[in-house]
Amino acid sequence: MRAEIIGIGTELLLGQIVNTNAQRISTALATVGIDVMWHVVVGDNHERMCAAIRTSIERSDAVIITGGLGPTPDDITREAIAEVAGRPLERVPELVEQIETVFKRFGRDMPEANLKQADLPQGANPIAPEGTAPGFYLDHGDALVVALPGVPWEMEAMLGKTVLPLLRARAGDSVILSRHVLVMGLGESATHEKVADIVDAQTNPTIAFLASHGQVRLRITAKAATESEALGLIAPVESALRERLGRAAVPGDHSTIASALGEMLRERGITVAVAESLTGGLIGATLSDIGGSGDYYLGSLVCYSTESKEHVAEVDPAILQGPGPVSEEAAGALAEAAARKFKADLGVSATGVAGPAEQDGMPVGTVFVGACVGGRTEVRRVKGYGDRSNIRGIATSAALDLGRRMIEEA
Amino acid sequence: MRAEIIGIGTELLLGQIVNTNAQRISTALATVGIDVMWHVVVGDNHERMCAAIRTSIERSDAVIITGGLGPTPDDITREAIAEVAGRPLERVPELVEQIETVFKRFGRDMPEANLKQADLPQGANPIAPEGTAPGFYLDHGDALVVALPGVPWEMEAMLGKTVLPLLRARAGDSVILSRHVLVMGLGESATHEKVADIVDAQTNPTIAFLASHGQVRLRITAKAATESEALGLIAPVESALRERLGRAAVPGDHSTIASALGEMLRERGITVAVAESLTGGLIGATLSDIGGSGDYYLGSLVCYSTESKEHVAEVDPAILQGPGPVSEEAAGALAEAAARKFKADLGVSATGVAGPAEQDGMPVGTVFVGACVGGRTEVRRVKGYGDRSNIRGIATSAALDLGRRMIEEA
Repeated sequence: MRAEIIGIGTELLLGQIVNTNAQRISTALATVGIDVMWHVVVGDNHERMCAAIRTSIERSDAVIITGGLGPTPDDITREAIAEVAGRPLERVPELVEQIETVFKRFGRDMPEANLKQADLPQGANPIAPEGTAPGFYLDHGDALVVALPGVPWEMEAMLGKTVLPLLRARAGDSVILSRHVLVMGLGESATHEKVADIVDAQTNPTIAFLASHGQVRLRITAKAATESEALGLIAPVESALRERLGRAAVPGDHSTIASALGEMLRERGITVAVAESLTGGLIGATLSDIGGSGDYYLGSLVCYSTESKEHVAEVDPAILQGPGPVSEEAAGALAEAAARKFKADLGVSATGVAGPAEQDGMPVGTVFVGACVGGRTEVRRVKGYGDRSNIRGIATSAALDLGRRMIEEA
Repeated sequence: MRAEIIGIGTELLLGQIVNTNAQRISTALATVGIDVMWHVVVGDNHERMCAAIRTSIERSDAVIITGGLGPTPDDITREAIAEVAGRPLERVPELVEQIETVFKRFGRDMPEANLKQADLPQGANPIAPEGTAPGFYLDHGDALVVALPGVPWEMEAMLGKTVLPLLRARAGDSVILSRHVLVMGLGESATHEKVADIVDAQTNPTIAFLASHGQVRLRITAKAATESEALGLIAPVESALRERLGRAAVPGDHSTIASALGEMLRERGITVAVAESLTGGLIGATLSDIGGSGDYYLGSLVCYSTESKEHVAEVDPAILQGPGPVSEEAAGALAEAAARKFKADLGVSATGVAGPAEQDGMPVGTVFVGACVGGRTEVRRVKGYGDRSNIRGIATSAALDLGRRMIEEA
């Protein structure tokens, strides 16, 4: 079964919002084994909407359309589907009632404009509104056409309650399942070189490369009739990849280094604290982005100014005046300060130059990360590249990975 | 001039990543007055890629393609464009050198696989690599075809340096220009109610609502022949909105509260430090996300554990045992600790419960923010909603806004 997703809305084409609906629907469809072949976005324009819908119906088994079901004059998805399907719009009394009920719940009368939300192409199956906009679906030719509101939570509720069960029933029994191999400190090209032959030999599972902020993820995705069959397809491929990648492959099914480190800390009952400079709080924010991280993350000294490195983290002034605040020595002292101040088992640190301008004679992209555990301190120099945000991301990943390696070795 | 954006990558269709590239390019094209009519996403499949590119070239004046320019076998955008344009791929020696230089900078030899990144359709104009992937553009029929890497920072660098100037030169004289009115502490519905009649009356400029993490942005967008004409269209509408919104509207053209506070601190020569709990470092990371923020941002005490609030921020133990770590009193003491420890003019703070579980008897979403300037401390209780990430975002916005208000009043 091949599906595609059409997003309706000029605000998407103006870049005012990101098309997260397409991502959420794609993720959901993958779990029920349906391949999404296209995403399309078109504005609030009748002709282009009809053209998009026609093309999609011809090439796909299921077409999921989001947006354009509201009460304003811009909302013309109903009309476009009606035209393409060659069925007139008809008012559905049960939807009128449901929309009126929604307004009553908020203590308001239904505005006249909302009535048109109860108009569906003849014979379409209504989906009860979550907010004020009903959805609907109909069969046209060989294709299932589904229309959902653009508001993410309304869309997701209908997707879960109505659309996924419908698609699952039509698609038959199959699942798409993924596991990750997270690769640190090797780079995307070098990772690829090491495993290219394994990747090339695969059709099911497939292996995707995703690189960001110094982290390379290999996602192994299998399609099978059952979950255990999919896992059985993935297992030998994952083993082969891990054998080839050696210590660069982070153990476990993790897509981020923060998740890998967090799980390791939790399992071993170890706490972590951070002292960070160029990242400005990002290392702590990344660690604490995970629910339950309070079990192992104690806090962070963000010493953005040089003076605060001396007075808040109590880094030896001789280090700050000699090697300087961007140096191996400073990274080491910061990691130790984090562990000491928070009484943490593991201290990690990062100092460097995120740009846009060089600092203390060090070029943009210079990064030192440190980690300290059980009285042992290690420091690494890392090369940051890209823009400010990317350099800060690389520093964050490298600091967390150094911490993970030191605990692994401890 | 009509443009469209094709995103290449199976990871997009699997929902593994969100198509932020389409959004960023759309936003950038709007600033130079180019209408984006379609977004399309297609997987790493030669036939579907060719079909997508053919369709786009027929209906649009400019086709911007992102992704599929890497060194792996999945990366086949070059081949698809070559086929559609009917031009063979040819190795470009200057690109080989540029890619080799990138690897040398990292102290590595260029892997053989990267050589194919220097192969462009005959006659295409190369765009020098930012990472390792070169981009390129060519004219085919009446359409300009541009290929950019999928890695966001590489794409954005090429967009700014090469693609926008190229499009601006071809598009002729028209600009789309936006200014923002940032609204804090009012909520999206309440903001909308206050200004609905002004919004409805507008066609040029148009007014868009964008809400996230407790910040509501009104984006006023005008299309005109010149920049000054566009600003002339925007000015009276902006004045009307600001008059209606009163103190909820943040002065200046800011789309984030961090940018508004940062500018205010810079102008007045004031420094800021943070003491944060539930945000885990996010307030500091948000402040320092802005280049040059080292001029006013000194650092942050991230006291995620209750013990660190006592021992690192030196909050009075009576507060932590009495009202508790999630309380008005704790927020006030943290803001004062931030100012004191970093010797900052302004201290801001946040403490609360991000979830998923309640904490110290306080429900998920409970947030207190504090600010302290010139010996005066203020605290606000804020209601966080949505998921963990949203609650942390709301706490961050509220803390920064309280700091801004106190400086405005000081």
